[in-house]
Amino acid sequence: MADMTTHIATSTADGITVRGHDLVNELVGRLTFTEMFYFLVCGRMPTKAECRVLDACLVTLMEHGFTPASLISRLVHDSVPEEIQVAVASGLLAVGSVFAGTMEGCARILQRGVGVEDPDRYCAQVVEEHRAAKKPVPGFGHAFHKPDDPRTPRLLSIAAEEGLSGKYVDLLQRLAVAVDRAAGRHLTINATGAIGALLLEIGIPPEVCRGVAVVSRSGGLVGHILEEQRTRSARFITKLAKEHIPYECPTR
Amino acid sequence: MADMTTHIATSTADGITVRGHDLVNELVGRLTFTEMFYFLVCGRMPTKAECRVLDACLVTLMEHGFTPASLISRLVHDSVPEEIQVAVASGLLAVGSVFAGTMEGCARILQRGVGVEDPDRYCAQVVEEHRAAKKPVPGFGHAFHKPDDPRTPRLLSIAAEEGLSGKYVDLLQRLAVAVDRAAGRHLTINATGAIGALLLEIGIPPEVCRGVAVVSRSGGLVGHILEEQRTRSARFITKLAKEHIPYECPTR
Amino acid sequence: MADMTTHIATSTADGITVRGHDLVNELVGRLTFTEMFYFLVCGRMPTKAECRVLDACLVTLMEHGFTPASLISRLVHDSVPEEIQVAVASGLLAVGSVFAGTMEGCARILQRGVGVEDPDRYCAQVVEEHRAAKKPVPGFGHAFHKPDDPRTPRLLSIAAEEGLSGKYVDLLQRLAVAVDRAAGRHLTINATGAIGALLLEIGIPPEVCRGVAVVSRSGGLVGHILEEQRTRSARFITKLAKEHIPYECPTR
Amino acid sequence: MADMTTHIATSTADGITVRGHDLVNELVGRLTFTEMFYFLVCGRMPTKAECRVLDACLVTLMEHGFTPASLISRLVHDSVPEEIQVAVASGLLAVGSVFAGTMEGCARILQRGVGVEDPDRYCAQVVEEHRAAKKPVPGFGHAFHKPDDPRTPRLLSIAAEEGLSGKYVDLLQRLAVAVDRAAGRHLTINATGAIGALLLEIGIPPEVCRGVAVVSRSGGLVGHILEEQRTRSARFITKLAKEHIPYECPTR
Repeated sequence: MADMTTHIATSTADGITVRGHDLVNELVGRLTFTEMFYFLVCGRMPTKAECRVLDACLVTLMEHGFTPASLISRLVHDSVPEEIQVAVASGLLAVGSVFAGTMEGCARILQRGVGVEDPDRYCAQVVEEHRAAKKPVPGFGHAFHKPDDPRTPRLLSIAAEEGLSGKYVDLLQRLAVAVDRAAGRHLTINATGAIGALLLEIGIPPEVCRGVAVVSRSGGLVGHILEEQRTRSARFITKLAKEHIPYECPTR
Repeated sequence: MADMTTHIATSTADGITVRGHDLVNELVGRLTFTEMFYFLVCGRMPTKAECRVLDACLVTLMEHGFTPASLISRLVHDSVPEEIQVAVASGLLAVGSVFAGTMEGCARILQRGVGVEDPDRYCAQVVEEHRAAKKPVPGFGHAFHKPDDPRTPRLLSIAAEEGLSGKYVDLLQRLAVAVDRAAGRHLTINATGAIGALLLEIGIPPEVCRGVAVVSRSGGLVGHILEEQRTRSARFITKLAKEHIPYECPTR
Repeated sequence: MADMTTHIATSTADGITVRGHDLVNELVGRLTFTEMFYFLVCGRMPTKAECRVLDACLVTLMEHGFTPASLISRLVHDSVPEEIQVAVASGLLAVGSVFAGTMEGCARILQRGVGVEDPDRYCAQVVEEHRAAKKPVPGFGHAFHKPDDPRTPRLLSIAAEEGLSGKYVDLLQRLAVAVDRAAGRHLTINATGAIGALLLEIGIPPEVCRGVAVVSRSGGLVGHILEEQRTRSARFITKLAKEHIPYECPTR
Repeated sequence: MADMTTHIATSTADGITVRGHDLVNELVGRLTFTEMFYFLVCGRMPTKAECRVLDACLVTLMEHGFTPASLISRLVHDSVPEEIQVAVASGLLAVGSVFAGTMEGCARILQRGVGVEDPDRYCAQVVEEHRAAKKPVPGFGHAFHKPDDPRTPRLLSIAAEEGLSGKYVDLLQRLAVAVDRAAGRHLTINATGAIGALLLEIGIPPEVCRGVAVVSRSGGLVGHILEEQRTRSARFITKLAKEHIPYECPTR
């Protein structure tokens, strides 16, 4: 078999090295979680500005109340109470193509379009292709936050404050114009669209955008598990489903 | 059915509330990930000192090179490449009783023992009970980091610097004396023991200690998935297992 | 490192061997799923009687309507529709200590007690220990099927018909007498208790009892996922939770 | 909210109904696992012939030795030994697009092509489209079983014996001719291709083909977990990875 190596970590009896740095003396006590996460993903330390933008994205995605993910974690915790990592992990499984996929999808559109000669034409084409395929443009529209997702202007203004509102944010805003024009009405840039652009601005590739959502959500799910320990909502939710979705004999 | 409520989050068309705070205006852009995580778990904002200690714990637990968790995430990513949350979540399933359980187990021993009249006697009893049951005292000993786990003194000194080396750290150190005395040799306080004590010092209950490990490790696993995308180690690992664990016909 | 081997399977370019048998010529087309599963777990082919008992257990455990497991699979399927194995697997995570643990727990009690000199005294002691610890005896009582779980007599009569109602079933029935006597009222042997005894009768060890439940339930969950594809119940369930578990501001 | 119902199951204090049948009196003791699974998925009882074909598919897919799925289950079991459903479920997560997707992909091609006017032209087009996209035709070729996958002729002959070698098998064979012609060499129909066709012949829709693989593999993984309990291969595998994939300092 061909040679294979890893750049991530190694250890000796008295030391641990992570990507070329001494864990104990150079990283622990010096870095925040967010800085360490950025370092592991991007291979370099973030600037203060990049760090604030990443924190804003992580804080935004952390908690959404009752979503499939939090319901799943509560149900699993009630069935496997001794292993809370199972409850967290099962909820994270739902941070999938339907939800987190739009963040990734929007980031890919922006990545492909940055640097094209005529960005507005690129945006119009993207919108046209999605309309032809009867698919929404990822990162636009929201079932509940209408007319505008309140998280988006806040995220974009943080990027601007930090001098990180660059070519990706610019392209997102051109895309928003194209989306509205084609729809004949206003569709909000939603939080996943804004975060897709911001993660590109700070150098996080689309392939790992979803990882940011997963890390963030893992924190929120721990909070749901703590509440589940007090309220036992899982059994209540199971009862709700039984009572509101009655059995009907199938016709044979 | 009895009434049930949640204290976590709610939203309207133009706002999101998380535990009594306006997400967009009070939390995003103001809090770091670590502060928001602490807030969701403990219900109040951490002090700067608590935050530094929590960050030190999170950074310590994030990355350990090739562990069961990182191997699992790599193998799953190779089989389900389009859904990276599945790769992260599957690795997190392994942050279970064997590894993270010792952090939790050590925290529970410290929690029970704080405030007893004779702490040294309590520690001696705890050690005795574990010896009788032929179980290691959770938080002590390390297969590889001998004689001492290098992470432990660093973690304890950060807590001391921040004025957070209190009754739980004190009891941990008494427990260490009792462990060594009963063993007749020195056994290190390992990182999970130190972190168990530090999390209690900053007000995180034993029931959620493992949640801290899960959140931290989720960040490290994203880094492994990125490396997997470049090196394709999963197939190499599967080949290694096939070549080094040959088939032997069972005797019927 | 010491030598390690596997007894499970190997293959060449033109053949596959499973536990000493040629997969293509000896197993495929000759064995049912249940026979093959028994063979992989027990290392020998089951008799017709053992096979009927195992099928009865598998059929009993397969489908229970709206349980945590089926709700979880529905919620995950709605979030990750392209990877149905993720939906099945996430539901299986809930086949844990709370539910499947009672099957295993009952089997362990029976396994330990078979062959003791005074089985009735053993049963009385087991009941006494559980009462002292304020824990229910695993395999007894049911929240809904009162006074008797209808599955139990059917399972026991199938074992009797097949000549497989032996020492474990006998001990289960003695245990039932002891349970009722100590409670001062009738508590049903539930399906998990009966199945625990039957699996021991056919030679399946307690360590894998839960595996039988997992295999069985995986079949049932595929049925739930198919229904989810038609009815979209996941979004309905999420709405139910939001509407019936309102947000209440935490007191700070 | 609109009305929602389920056709799957309901229960009363003394009875359980599954899809219109009394579980205790009509299903347990009368059906095999395979019949019950078919019933839950297809809504009717299978014929003996359909049942034998489904069993052949299930037996074929159950066990493959060291695959990502079995390695994952072993690694998770070592970390979470008390909850074996977690080990099974984590392995099943890997029965994903890369492996089981080819079964599903082949079934979809066959389903779309059945009934077209010129089936050979349809097959040639399918092959052409895959070549243009530089993708293999799902269900063809095998990394190891060359020139032919030994499972395929066995599976096809069982279908023929049972009178279930119909239009889908016919189209699969035409597709095989087209694949070979375009490649200029022989590519085997692999087991996932044959199973895709057979499942269509017995009325199982492509949307659930992967469910058949999941159910089958769950049985095989229980066998791996049992072996893991005896051999502790997980730690051996982790050591193998550490030793054969050395750390290399990243260039900064």
